[in-house]
Amino acid sequence: MVVVEGLAGLHRSHGCGELTAADAGKEVTLMGWVHRRRDHGGLIFIDLRDRSGLVQVVCDPKSGPAFQKAEEVRNEYVVAVRGLVRRRPEGTVNPKLPTGEIEVVAEEFRLLNRAKTPPFYIDDGIDVDEALRLRYRYLDLRRPEMQRLLYLRYRTTRAIRDFLDARGFWEIETPMLTRSTPEGARDFLVPSRLRPGEFFALPQSPQLFKQILMVAGVERYFQIVRCFRDEDLRADRQPEFTQLDMEMSFVQREDILKLVEELMAYVFRETLGVELALPLPRLTYREAMDRYGSDKPDIRFGMEIVDVSDLVAGCGFKVFAEAVARGGVVRGLCAPGCAGYSRRELDELTRQAAVFGAKGLAWMAVTPEGIRSPIAKFFTAGELEGLVARLAGKPGDLLLFVADTETTAATALGALRLEMGRRLHLYDPEQLAFTWVTEFPLLEYSAEEKRYVAVHHPFTMPMEEDWPLLDSDPLRVRALAYDLVLNGVELGGGSIRIHRRDIQEKMFNLLGFTPEAARDKFGFLLDAFEYGTPPHGGIAFGLDRMLMLMARRDTIRDCIPFPKTQSGTCLMTAAPSGVSPEQLQELHLRSTARKSTNPA
Amino acid sequence: MVVVEGLAGLHRSHGCGELTAADAGKEVTLMGWVHRRRDHGGLIFIDLRDRSGLVQVVCDPKSGPAFQKAEEVRNEYVVAVRGLVRRRPEGTVNPKLPTGEIEVVAEEFRLLNRAKTPPFYIDDGIDVDEALRLRYRYLDLRRPEMQRLLYLRYRTTRAIRDFLDARGFWEIETPMLTRSTPEGARDFLVPSRLRPGEFFALPQSPQLFKQILMVAGVERYFQIVRCFRDEDLRADRQPEFTQLDMEMSFVQREDILKLVEELMAYVFRETLGVELALPLPRLTYREAMDRYGSDKPDIRFGMEIVDVSDLVAGCGFKVFAEAVARGGVVRGLCAPGCAGYSRRELDELTRQAAVFGAKGLAWMAVTPEGIRSPIAKFFTAGELEGLVARLAGKPGDLLLFVADTETTAATALGALRLEMGRRLHLYDPEQLAFTWVTEFPLLEYSAEEKRYVAVHHPFTMPMEEDWPLLDSDPLRVRALAYDLVLNGVELGGGSIRIHRRDIQEKMFNLLGFTPEAARDKFGFLLDAFEYGTPPHGGIAFGLDRMLMLMARRDTIRDCIPFPKTQSGTCLMTAAPSGVSPEQLQELHLRSTARKSTNPA
Repeated sequence: MVVVEGLAGLHRSHGCGELTAADAGKEVTLMGWVHRRRDHGGLIFIDLRDRSGLVQVVCDPKSGPAFQKAEEVRNEYVVAVRGLVRRRPEGTVNPKLPTGEIEVVAEEFRLLNRAKTPPFYIDDGIDVDEALRLRYRYLDLRRPEMQRLLYLRYRTTRAIRDFLDARGFWEIETPMLTRSTPEGARDFLVPSRLRPGEFFALPQSPQLFKQILMVAGVERYFQIVRCFRDEDLRADRQPEFTQLDMEMSFVQREDILKLVEELMAYVFRETLGVELALPLPRLTYREAMDRYGSDKPDIRFGMEIVDVSDLVAGCGFKVFAEAVARGGVVRGLCAPGCAGYSRRELDELTRQAAVFGAKGLAWMAVTPEGIRSPIAKFFTAGELEGLVARLAGKPGDLLLFVADTETTAATALGALRLEMGRRLHLYDPEQLAFTWVTEFPLLEYSAEEKRYVAVHHPFTMPMEEDWPLLDSDPLRVRALAYDLVLNGVELGGGSIRIHRRDIQEKMFNLLGFTPEAARDKFGFLLDAFEYGTPPHGGIAFGLDRMLMLMARRDTIRDCIPFPKTQSGTCLMTAAPSGVSPEQLQELHLRSTARKSTNPA
Repeated sequence: MVVVEGLAGLHRSHGCGELTAADAGKEVTLMGWVHRRRDHGGLIFIDLRDRSGLVQVVCDPKSGPAFQKAEEVRNEYVVAVRGLVRRRPEGTVNPKLPTGEIEVVAEEFRLLNRAKTPPFYIDDGIDVDEALRLRYRYLDLRRPEMQRLLYLRYRTTRAIRDFLDARGFWEIETPMLTRSTPEGARDFLVPSRLRPGEFFALPQSPQLFKQILMVAGVERYFQIVRCFRDEDLRADRQPEFTQLDMEMSFVQREDILKLVEELMAYVFRETLGVELALPLPRLTYREAMDRYGSDKPDIRFGMEIVDVSDLVAGCGFKVFAEAVARGGVVRGLCAPGCAGYSRRELDELTRQAAVFGAKGLAWMAVTPEGIRSPIAKFFTAGELEGLVARLAGKPGDLLLFVADTETTAATALGALRLEMGRRLHLYDPEQLAFTWVTEFPLLEYSAEEKRYVAVHHPFTMPMEEDWPLLDSDPLRVRALAYDLVLNGVELGGGSIRIHRRDIQEKMFNLLGFTPEAARDKFGFLLDAFEYGTPPHGGIAFGLDRMLMLMARRDTIRDCIPFPKTQSGTCLMTAAPSGVSPEQLQELHLRSTARKSTNPA
């Protein structure tokens, strides 16, 4: 058996994937993994793989010991090869491989380590259960497509840092062991050994600390930072996730939006070579809801929602007329080329609308002969013409209507719009369509808590022109809050913060907090606000989700080096796990779990 | 009362500290904090401060509203000023201030926010209790010297990232919610809500993950990463701290040391403008212990420890002769100019040596008339001459000796050497003296566990020339481990890792683990090692400590934006804190603490 050897005397000269025809004639030293081995015509051909790519190594029996060692290797063995680069013989050039014009003739060969047969191929596009990939993450990450994702993630954070450095931002670390936050999602807790009965919390975001840093005069802060939320697990959420967090002083909303647009343009150019057209489009919350039925509209395609309430206000179709009479709306959209939908297809769409609370879905098929619809008889010819014209229906199109409250009509049609857009391939999946959504409502009414609650958070500044409404009609007050949306997914959101004490007091008052309650909930931040707080605002982005969109993957787990499963466990390390009774005792805790569910 | 105003229509044009005589005549818009206000000759002078520095603003009653608003400001009020830059009148130039040649004549003045009187001056060199500074960290960080520390920390991480990026390293994030480690310090635990009775642990370092990344083919990894240790609190330890963590594949020790030296040279040049002379000095562990009595020697000064065992082996002074006869050593050092030390001073040194286990401290004063010492009479004139010559004693010097086991003599004299170096000002405190310490022992014997334990960790590679000793004399085996030391402080350490199965098995065997026990302790890493592990090694640095040395501060707390106290609490947020019984119930835990010690 060939002995495993060390590196002594060998120094890697090149990455496998770096060699080109220009290197022909050079002596090189390569180190990497055996990707494939083929024996052919008495020679051994090894595709040698490292981080930089693949190259073909040829071992000839004339090389003696090198050939003997090569005879023993199998896939994923780790080897070092010293040899000469030569152009491949006529007819054996591989145009699919960047190094396909050359090969390396081995003169010295060392077996650096053996490998068991991996549980799946170390290659792209494998069809393997995700659980197996996660368990053997070290092999999964060895696959070229996963290496590209690791590298894209690194290049993205690097580009973010380069851009923000040039703009005078300082990256500043905030604590991971901090205080349980009074509002928001559920905290992960960390028991304190030194202070019995007390706990740290892992941060859900550095929100309070970044505002503190503005009070501290840092002026331009950012951080690429781990955050934690102990949420009930939904598709594609992770208990720990990474956030790009930013905050600036002495700025207005426009300054932040402009800077973020330039940041995105820089990052997408540097990492994907994609040029974004600036400024990015903007929609107010109102427009986004009216036209797209969503506060995170996918604007890669049109098929916008259209209000027809005025056209049907007094019509003969009672469902429509009464919805309008009750203060609701009738809205529709035009699905191009769908006039031939079957009863079953229409029923399916109706079910989908019902998921979002719509009590029904009306349809009209536009045909060369006119409207075909079970409800056509309730409308005058002029009304039908008006509807078709408003929705820009052409023969062959299908018009879909929802008559309901404004919110239900918007969200149900918004969901139908997305479904139809997908079905009808109305957009290029490669396209990147950013949009800002601005002017979110400041408050919403919580029926559960019987009070107003902040849509963003209690430190978000209301728009100055709406200040008078704070007293008269709080739900109509718009906030200086903004989300950045890409292809229908929220990438991030932020706001200008309140820095004036009078407005903050008004806000707490609206939220139903006494000054004492406010102090109890947000004590140290309110203290800090008393000592000269500059006007400031910021934004935060979910890095994992952004990468998923950039890499066009279906799950954020592919974009996180070591993700948790959907049930919040790590299959590679088998975390979480049981701990010893002594460890719990030191933490002044007793477990009330019936039994450990530790799979170990 | 002057109304607090918004920023509408104003855009900051310059930082306060950026203005120079070249800007005279320009209209500028500045925003910042009132550092000082002086009323003089009917005018108001405001030193306006922002992150970039200070500038003098002059308000003239002729400016009308601007003057009226300026009349109201006090220290730390936040203001915006639009005005004209002009050269200061003859005789009022302030050469101490970078902007001291000019001032800004206010034309428009806005009060952006008020401030209460801070509990301490927002200025450098204040003499304030650290607890007060930590409680009001947002004000403490506003002080220029703390802003410089925040900036130095940022520039340092930036320089590290720039250098490593250029060398092909990828920054990769490893999990914070991971598995409790079987060896090392105490873990912080995070209870799992979804898996009753199970816990995540916060990482003490990403050691296992970075080795996994090498198995995954990443080849060059780094991370600036938060780590956690629930240690009993010692001076200047923090429960959470930041580490620069690195690992490389296909490298030998020399490759790593060279790269790290170039990294340090780059970082110190970019941040401090200091040029390091490369290569850095190296000492083996043996040399460091023999010459400096420490494995983290401060080589800013000489005064090395000298072995005199051979000179005193048969001498008339029994303490010395017997120590040598028992297999111990006699070592000494020469304290220049201390021949006149009083009885009291000598007693004090003896007490200090005793702290490190030395049973006594012998001394000889070198005078122009010869040796003065209570033990001189036990030596021949030739022996005395020999000792003075070996220690290079000159008239006026004091020779100090310890006769003991090798380890005790080394560490006691090492401590005395540091003490005398400090007292005698033998070094320039501004000097930066790096040294590598290499060839650490692989193993040490644990009397407590009655077995060998790894000095570094069980994955550290023994030096190849010592492999034969693994069987015959394990304690003499040296490891491919190395520490980087600066001014007597360990900045970081690392090793070449074992990647060969036969050596790993031998190592576990030496550590007294059965294969089953090894698997139980290091299961997933050992699994990973079976699938083609490349030769690899790495190093990790304590960033907080490195910054403390770079900034010449006395505590790492000054170099961490939001540190914990020495008792592990955050005075600003009052963390840790009590949590609700419902929170504990959800985590399947009950507290056994008698009472909460929550100070709130």
